[in-house]
Amino acid sequence: MSQKLKIALPKGSLQEPTIKLLKQAGYNVYTSDRGLRPSSDDSELDIYMIRAQEIGRYLEQGFIDCGITGLDWAWEHEDALEDLAELPYSRATVRPTKWVLVVPEDSPIKTVEDLEGKRIATEGVGITQRYLDQKGVSAKIEFSWGATEVKVPDLVDAIVDVTETGSSIRANKLRIVDTLLTSFPHFYAGKEACKNEWKREKMERMVLMLKACIEARGKVGLKLNLPEKALPELLELLPSLHGPTVSHLATEGWVAVDTIIEEKVARSLIPDLKLVGAEGIIEYPLSKIVQ
Amino acid sequence: MSQKLKIALPKGSLQEPTIKLLKQAGYNVYTSDRGLRPSSDDSELDIYMIRAQEIGRYLEQGFIDCGITGLDWAWEHEDALEDLAELPYSRATVRPTKWVLVVPEDSPIKTVEDLEGKRIATEGVGITQRYLDQKGVSAKIEFSWGATEVKVPDLVDAIVDVTETGSSIRANKLRIVDTLLTSFPHFYAGKEACKNEWKREKMERMVLMLKACIEARGKVGLKLNLPEKALPELLELLPSLHGPTVSHLATEGWVAVDTIIEEKVARSLIPDLKLVGAEGIIEYPLSKIVQ
Amino acid sequence: MSQKLKIALPKGSLQEPTIKLLKQAGYNVYTSDRGLRPSSDDSELDIYMIRAQEIGRYLEQGFIDCGITGLDWAWEHEDALEDLAELPYSRATVRPTKWVLVVPEDSPIKTVEDLEGKRIATEGVGITQRYLDQKGVSAKIEFSWGATEVKVPDLVDAIVDVTETGSSIRANKLRIVDTLLTSFPHFYAGKEACKNEWKREKMERMVLMLKACIEARGKVGLKLNLPEKALPELLELLPSLHGPTVSHLATEGWVAVDTIIEEKVARSLIPDLKLVGAEGIIEYPLSKIVQ
Amino acid sequence: MSQKLKIALPKGSLQEPTIKLLKQAGYNVYTSDRGLRPSSDDSELDIYMIRAQEIGRYLEQGFIDCGITGLDWAWEHEDALEDLAELPYSRATVRPTKWVLVVPEDSPIKTVEDLEGKRIATEGVGITQRYLDQKGVSAKIEFSWGATEVKVPDLVDAIVDVTETGSSIRANKLRIVDTLLTSFPHFYAGKEACKNEWKREKMERMVLMLKACIEARGKVGLKLNLPEKALPELLELLPSLHGPTVSHLATEGWVAVDTIIEEKVARSLIPDLKLVGAEGIIEYPLSKIVQ
Amino acid sequence: MSQKLKIALPKGSLQEPTIKLLKQAGYNVYTSDRGLRPSSDDSELDIYMIRAQEIGRYLEQGFIDCGITGLDWAWEHEDALEDLAELPYSRATVRPTKWVLVVPEDSPIKTVEDLEGKRIATEGVGITQRYLDQKGVSAKIEFSWGATEVKVPDLVDAIVDVTETGSSIRANKLRIVDTLLTSFPHFYAGKEACKNEWKREKMERMVLMLKACIEARGKVGLKLNLPEKALPELLELLPSLHGPTVSHLATEGWVAVDTIIEEKVARSLIPDLKLVGAEGIIEYPLSKIVQ
Amino acid sequence: MSQKLKIALPKGSLQEPTIKLLKQAGYNVYTSDRGLRPSSDDSELDIYMIRAQEIGRYLEQGFIDCGITGLDWAWEHEDALEDLAELPYSRATVRPTKWVLVVPEDSPIKTVEDLEGKRIATEGVGITQRYLDQKGVSAKIEFSWGATEVKVPDLVDAIVDVTETGSSIRANKLRIVDTLLTSFPHFYAGKEACKNEWKREKMERMVLMLKACIEARGKVGLKLNLPEKALPELLELLPSLHGPTVSHLATEGWVAVDTIIEEKVARSLIPDLKLVGAEGIIEYPLSKIVQ
Repeated sequence: MSQKLKIALPKGSLQEPTIKLLKQAGYNVYTSDRGLRPSSDDSELDIYMIRAQEIGRYLEQGFIDCGITGLDWAWEHEDALEDLAELPYSRATVRPTKWVLVVPEDSPIKTVEDLEGKRIATEGVGITQRYLDQKGVSAKIEFSWGATEVKVPDLVDAIVDVTETGSSIRANKLRIVDTLLTSFPHFYAGKEACKNEWKREKMERMVLMLKACIEARGKVGLKLNLPEKALPELLELLPSLHGPTVSHLATEGWVAVDTIIEEKVARSLIPDLKLVGAEGIIEYPLSKIVQ
Repeated sequence: MSQKLKIALPKGSLQEPTIKLLKQAGYNVYTSDRGLRPSSDDSELDIYMIRAQEIGRYLEQGFIDCGITGLDWAWEHEDALEDLAELPYSRATVRPTKWVLVVPEDSPIKTVEDLEGKRIATEGVGITQRYLDQKGVSAKIEFSWGATEVKVPDLVDAIVDVTETGSSIRANKLRIVDTLLTSFPHFYAGKEACKNEWKREKMERMVLMLKACIEARGKVGLKLNLPEKALPELLELLPSLHGPTVSHLATEGWVAVDTIIEEKVARSLIPDLKLVGAEGIIEYPLSKIVQ
Repeated sequence: MSQKLKIALPKGSLQEPTIKLLKQAGYNVYTSDRGLRPSSDDSELDIYMIRAQEIGRYLEQGFIDCGITGLDWAWEHEDALEDLAELPYSRATVRPTKWVLVVPEDSPIKTVEDLEGKRIATEGVGITQRYLDQKGVSAKIEFSWGATEVKVPDLVDAIVDVTETGSSIRANKLRIVDTLLTSFPHFYAGKEACKNEWKREKMERMVLMLKACIEARGKVGLKLNLPEKALPELLELLPSLHGPTVSHLATEGWVAVDTIIEEKVARSLIPDLKLVGAEGIIEYPLSKIVQ
Repeated sequence: MSQKLKIALPKGSLQEPTIKLLKQAGYNVYTSDRGLRPSSDDSELDIYMIRAQEIGRYLEQGFIDCGITGLDWAWEHEDALEDLAELPYSRATVRPTKWVLVVPEDSPIKTVEDLEGKRIATEGVGITQRYLDQKGVSAKIEFSWGATEVKVPDLVDAIVDVTETGSSIRANKLRIVDTLLTSFPHFYAGKEACKNEWKREKMERMVLMLKACIEARGKVGLKLNLPEKALPELLELLPSLHGPTVSHLATEGWVAVDTIIEEKVARSLIPDLKLVGAEGIIEYPLSKIVQ
Repeated sequence: MSQKLKIALPKGSLQEPTIKLLKQAGYNVYTSDRGLRPSSDDSELDIYMIRAQEIGRYLEQGFIDCGITGLDWAWEHEDALEDLAELPYSRATVRPTKWVLVVPEDSPIKTVEDLEGKRIATEGVGITQRYLDQKGVSAKIEFSWGATEVKVPDLVDAIVDVTETGSSIRANKLRIVDTLLTSFPHFYAGKEACKNEWKREKMERMVLMLKACIEARGKVGLKLNLPEKALPELLELLPSLHGPTVSHLATEGWVAVDTIIEEKVARSLIPDLKLVGAEGIIEYPLSKIVQ
Repeated sequence: MSQKLKIALPKGSLQEPTIKLLKQAGYNVYTSDRGLRPSSDDSELDIYMIRAQEIGRYLEQGFIDCGITGLDWAWEHEDALEDLAELPYSRATVRPTKWVLVVPEDSPIKTVEDLEGKRIATEGVGITQRYLDQKGVSAKIEFSWGATEVKVPDLVDAIVDVTETGSSIRANKLRIVDTLLTSFPHFYAGKEACKNEWKREKMERMVLMLKACIEARGKVGLKLNLPEKALPELLELLPSLHGPTVSHLATEGWVAVDTIIEEKVARSLIPDLKLVGAEGIIEYPLSKIVQ
């Protein structure tokens, strides 16, 4: 029987972007409405949809080989896992998830030390516990099933919650005391799986492809023609991140330049390229960049 | 300052039907997008939206006076609460929520006793613990954040989950070992709040109105005219649940009958009413029935 | 084993309004997404979802006992069926379906006789054949899978199609030559089923309830108080369709009148009622009227 | 040829609730997607869909006989129109539209007088002009096509805008200086149309029906049985707005009471009714109440 | 007057993907809501939207020159048509439509021969007839308007239906006896149209463009830089399907390679390319590949 | 403090395509639900969302430096603005907005001169006034809040309105008398802003990038390999708009050609390219073309 890699994907808000990223990387995962195990077009994969919160636990217990989940949920299992790559994508934006310790605007609590002996509600009991342990503070942590931000000050003294822009915190008249963690998804492997050579190589190939896709996001290809003598001036303008591919054109004294740039520098770079003599500048989309 | 009753409503899947029921009962609750406390047109109410799972806890701790939540989530706090009324409504249908102990079809586990020393995943840790305690069985209960039904047999030995029709259980090739609980929403009060006379009466009035609305669901009004002498025969046909209102018509020897019947008996009752001489039978909708 | 009535309901555009009508009549039918047979809360019914076009065929073949389908599709099986009731409801409006013979505006075809030897496209081959037979005309009838109205004049000489308002006919620059049929849903029974007494009574009770629901659509209840002496004047104003229920009030010389009127006459009737002295006029909704 | 009443309905946000109200009152209006004049089932009506802002202008010019539009938009034409009825409905809630004069929180403008010589942006140029004229203030009023609230203080000194809850005003850090007007829809007639007896009566009948529908909103019917001797006590409890209909029951010494109450008092009234001995209390919906 | 090619496009589930494919190929087709003939930006085309089932018939009758429709529906007209190209696209996936002969799981029918004298319901009467003729079996074929899979065994003995994954067949407890046909869309021409040189060339150009688009789906461009001496090793890795374009870079001893690969091999190919020394590997999207 | 460019973007139907175009050009604009000023990732921009109709006014008054709005709405401010570029994009299609003078089909008005002394309703009072002034015609222009096309002939004599396809004009039985203006969005600058060197250069860079994006719409890249000797023949076929990039392949006697073509000529060009010997023709998407 052929080898299999048991991989966990995060069910919930990260599910759709994760499956889209895998698809872009060449792994088509088919989920089922009826709660069955997903299938894929890679027969070497055994895929489990597991809540992001639980992937670390099952990796540590050794029931699965590897998984994609947020650093936040894996944090408390950190010592038992191999962190193969940070994959900086997320549900909607490219911003990381940020866990913050929050109190009412007019609360006497100013620092984490003021929490000693208080009550905290949070969906992230493990994250909060690890943080308090590091700070040497002892408080009662209560699991919150949601709607956490309306619990202070009536039901608890402080909460630990996820924030994106901070605007919901201001709207609820709350104040951030400290940031516990900022978190992107990572590709984690269990210790045992890493010792198996076949599994290790399989995981590394997946990581290579996933990183190639993320690398291509926010980047574009740029092609232009240039008098050969203007080349040094052009090279100075180009960001050094990848050396451009330069080839001679049929027209004597001209070269074609093909390079990769960050989409966000295009608006300042392209007008400058014209100034040094570039012609026929075109920008085209990319889908993977292997580093 | 005027008295206030602190009431918790269940945030989540029961939120919309609960607010609809309160509106029908005459209490308009306005929720806010921005996570603020809901307001209402009854200035004596202080409303908290709290997850159904947590209402029992905060009632027991005395932070709130009363609340509507499922019997299942309040079960472990039962001894500390007053159960003022069962309110048999639910998210979509009128069926109660049913918690079942489930294993793979081909599992050796046949009875709850076989779980001794095994691992169980469930969203209802408290419910499962109370059930195992009653059965005198000791097992490891693991909190599951969801997608519980795909965890057996790879990750755990058994699960405790909610089922509606059992069809998802069959689709996943699982088997029900036992039913822990069937559960409707209830109106619970804290012990302290019950000792306050004003709060007690306020809660009883709310319960009266809520029950009047539920009573009216699935019932209709029926009016008909009848020769007075056929009245005994008619009364035999009518279900005894409410005595009909009989009044004399201007036409000598005829009476008007106005009664309430269950909608589902209409299809067999109405043809029979015609047979005993009823005329001008009309059915009309009701919105409350006070018992 | 208990008796069963095999009933066919029309799958397609009539499905939803038919199931809604049955529900109103007290028969809750539950359809399944997975193509299975529908279930219901009446254990004496065996329900089949069959395309409206085919119900007549299977009734004639005796595979089912009764069914609801349009007169149009049952037309060619008319002699083999019992027509228990016309049920004037439809998908969106209360207008019947109208089948028309249509040609291009500038076609030389003026009457059905001009079709002799021509080619006609239609989704209703049976309807068209029966119509041509009655007219003694012989033409080639071609089954059309849809988009029939764009086939003239390029692909066929005439079409037979359903129209609602005629506006699509004008938009396509077509002309109506003749109307073949106007059609509402009917409740049909097979000849054999009618001979079975239990089935016959079961069908008659269903028809009674279905008609009571349709009768109530577009009608409302009206209650008012009136000086007794103004009663004759009032009775003249009221449409004769149902005699009103008149009862004496506790206040000497006054009567309460309760009656049913068509919703669409309310706007002219109610102002007149005030003129003859009616007070406390209120209008209320009805759900069934048994005739 | 028969008489016609030319009536304008407000196109825009009031369109849907206006057509719904007319339908409830017995006038079915059919609008067309293709921009054509609406039709109706009352052949005596000629219906025009005109923007709420323009109905007053065309009524004053005499092109139409009557129309439904907000008091705000008709205000500047007030002297040329007959105001037949206020119809307190609106797009979403039952709150009136409120026009306010608004400046930045930190603006030196404190009263309307401070606007002398300043620049104001508003969608309601006529409303603002009439208001300033009444106050004897002269300022430059600039028509605003929308997004008015972001114009202060960069582009203008003050704005006149519609507010519902004031929350958008606070979110934009603005301050209300004065309220110009609160406005519900009204039924207006032109002076000429009122002189025509047929048109006058037609309009009055429409107004009677429209008011009967609005009156029924937020009210319900209540029926109960009562020992006759408890009647005085009951009558004291009932709000005086409509005398209840009392009739004798077949059971000696008992009366049936049928009355109308406001939905929002039900929650306090019904528990009290039980206390005085009422039985079989049921609440039922109403669709029109004629006063 | 200029020449015109009469082309039929399939109305129904294939309509949208067909119009999208034509657009990608450079032919913009504009359909109208009002049932009119579609227009396009190619004035040499006369476009007809015809149900996929009927295109074969009208091609055979010579009313149109060419058309895109499924092999299944054209099958019975095969001898009268020229099959210019298979176009392997479909509504949702790239899988072909599969027609199967199906019976209840427990039916005695095991092979097509067992159907002799039985009754079969199907939407594809022509397909089924041609198949039975080839097998030398005689059975009664009944046209089914839909919901075919619920007809066995109550109404017919077997059905012929389309299946995608077979899951609906299992859910209905049915069994596949034989596969009649797997079918993709094809570009068909009528015999007469093929004899006209202008039409023939026009059709061949369309087919060239349509195939170029389908060829590009599921393929991507790949560019990389490589030490010239590693070229032989690289060429061995690359699938032979298209020879890569190799050009010299300005940097001595290095070449740029530009090639096309199937998207689904990228995940195994790219890691290997790195191993032979490729640098700056980027993947980019393609829209057409002309073979 | 750093320099800022105040730029106005058109709120309303152009908002979404404008923000999408800016994003493609490298300027990410973030709008807020709460009516606040938009932010962007270019800290040198101060962005105002202003209705397209008002941008010209505020540019002329000098409150903002530059803006994107339709030629139509800026027309009356033309003399006070600098027109930096036409940007031929629009809400849905690439067609410009067309303003037409319209009358009922049977109106006696045949030319603009016939409007002398008549009444015209229009949303574009400024546009219409400027047009009438140029024609030397004097008429009463009435601001219309919408639904303009139903106002003739009952309420006004003529209207000036926007048309896309003319189909709504025909459906309303109207006739076009004259076209006032066809209009695309433009990038306008105020006179003062143009005198500031920093602002001028900033605006020119933005215009360069915006035009590069629009240029790329409807164009594609084309790559092919060719025997060198066939190059002259190929160059004749290629549209002259951009000279192709020609480079030598590693294979002796072959060149690679990379060029840009209009998407709409591909369908006629590609088959011809094959005829002159091109191989490996692939088409790929572009995102910017700098001219």
